Amino acid sequence: MLVTACLVIIGDEILSGRTQDMNLQILARRLGERGVQLVHVRVLSDDEAVIISNLREVRVSYDYIFTTGGIGPTHDDITSETVAKALGLSWEINVEAFSLLESYYLEAGVPFNESRQKMAMMPAGSGLLYNPISVAPGFHIENFFILAGVPSIMDRMLDTALPLLKGGTVLHSQALSCTLGEGVIASMLSNFQDRYPSVTIGSYPIFQFNNLSLQLVLRSGDRDILQQLYDELFSRLVEMDGSPEAVVV
Amino acid sequence: MLVTACLVIIGDEILSGRTQDMNLQILARRLGERGVQLVHVRVLSDDEAVIISNLREVRVSYDYIFTTGGIGPTHDDITSETVAKALGLSWEINVEAFSLLESYYLEAGVPFNESRQKMAMMPAGSGLLYNPISVAPGFHIENFFILAGVPSIMDRMLDTALPLLKGGTVLHSQALSCTLGEGVIASMLSNFQDRYPSVTIGSYPIFQFNNLSLQLVLRSGDRDILQQLYDELFSRLVEMDGSPEAVVV
Repeated sequence: MLVTACLVIIGDEILSGRTQDMNLQILARRLGERGVQLVHVRVLSDDEAVIISNLREVRVSYDYIFTTGGIGPTHDDITSETVAKALGLSWEINVEAFSLLESYYLEAGVPFNESRQKMAMMPAGSGLLYNPISVAPGFHIENFFILAGVPSIMDRMLDTALPLLKGGTVLHSQALSCTLGEGVIASMLSNFQDRYPSVTIGSYPIFQFNNLSLQLVLRSGDRDILQQLYDELFSRLVEMDGSPEAVVV
Repeated sequence: MLVTACLVIIGDEILSGRTQDMNLQILARRLGERGVQLVHVRVLSDDEAVIISNLREVRVSYDYIFTTGGIGPTHDDITSETVAKALGLSWEINVEAFSLLESYYLEAGVPFNESRQKMAMMPAGSGLLYNPISVAPGFHIENFFILAGVPSIMDRMLDTALPLLKGGTVLHSQALSCTLGEGVIASMLSNFQDRYPSVTIGSYPIFQFNNLSLQLVLRSGDRDILQQLYDELFSRLVEMDGSPEAVVV
């Protein structure tokens, strides 16, 4: 069974090139282990109208929608209110979130001011995604999972989010690297792909320090067929250049 | 004048989390220097129907569409043919690309086989984006710029692509970091944002080694107003915690 997810990365800092996104990779891997395939990603600016139209478009196309970024206390943090608008829900104090934040700031001896209270505002009916690092939680509502932009916090919020997902087929992968050019093995690979339609064969050239290597990645839900193709391909590559090295998946 | 760009990253290896995309950041920065704002990004799987529908959707919404990935010689490299289909153009041998590749492989003493010849196939009417690293070129057609997925090659293809773009307003930026929490300065920042509508103020908490810092990024097309806001904000932060450090933009 194919269970799909879409990630919407919200933030001008990613689009301007100032900040390198690290969340896509973390999310893709953790979803993959749970049998959920990340199949579509969008990066959007901090613009309410843009976010609303994109969220409405993707929510009907994928099983789960994840967002990262824009849930802090400042004026440019508009994700939470925007999700409420996109879903046509009221945006209100979440009592559990308010209580967690109130205790946290009380203990820290820091005022729980209006800006900080904003982090307890969520679409009506949201459940929390806990944040053991800096307390302010993410949330889930309908098929949306609203996560922090800071990667370490986003990662921990997934600890609450992932058990809530229905899992599908877990895709297994195996990889081989060799020093043959893509142009040399392209027709052979194409034949293998035709013979093994249930395995996805990816071919990725890597240029590093002026050396070319080629990484071949095999992915399938069926471990046995994957192993069979891997063994055949390995033998062919050994015949062709004598030195394929199996690489860590 | 606002000139906009959309990036479409094509590749299962990005969506699976196996490969960390590095092209968004390179492209965003180089476009920014040229006065073109990257405002939307999508990551798509190597699926013809998905790519065609997304390309048709974005091409009418942004001034320029850039794609990365999928222009090599293997079976999973479908970008070029798919762009031709999306635009309703025939997909044919580009004479200049064919000639460049033929000379290159002749000199290298390597057969210019059918797989390699595929890299000379492009939508009718395409212009080349040269590749001084491994010769096989990208191309541009209408408002599309089709680039390699390998970052070093993508970067060099932009040397040909960027002079072809009409430039808009270049956004300048300045950044400040401080150790104050977002919750402390949120209302002050919001006031500054109201008073300086032509500057975008972004607030980005950074957690590293269990320390919190806050980076404030100011962006505007008007250098003077940017400097004025920067100076005012700097003074306010000094008043508040005594130790803001100006950081390299």
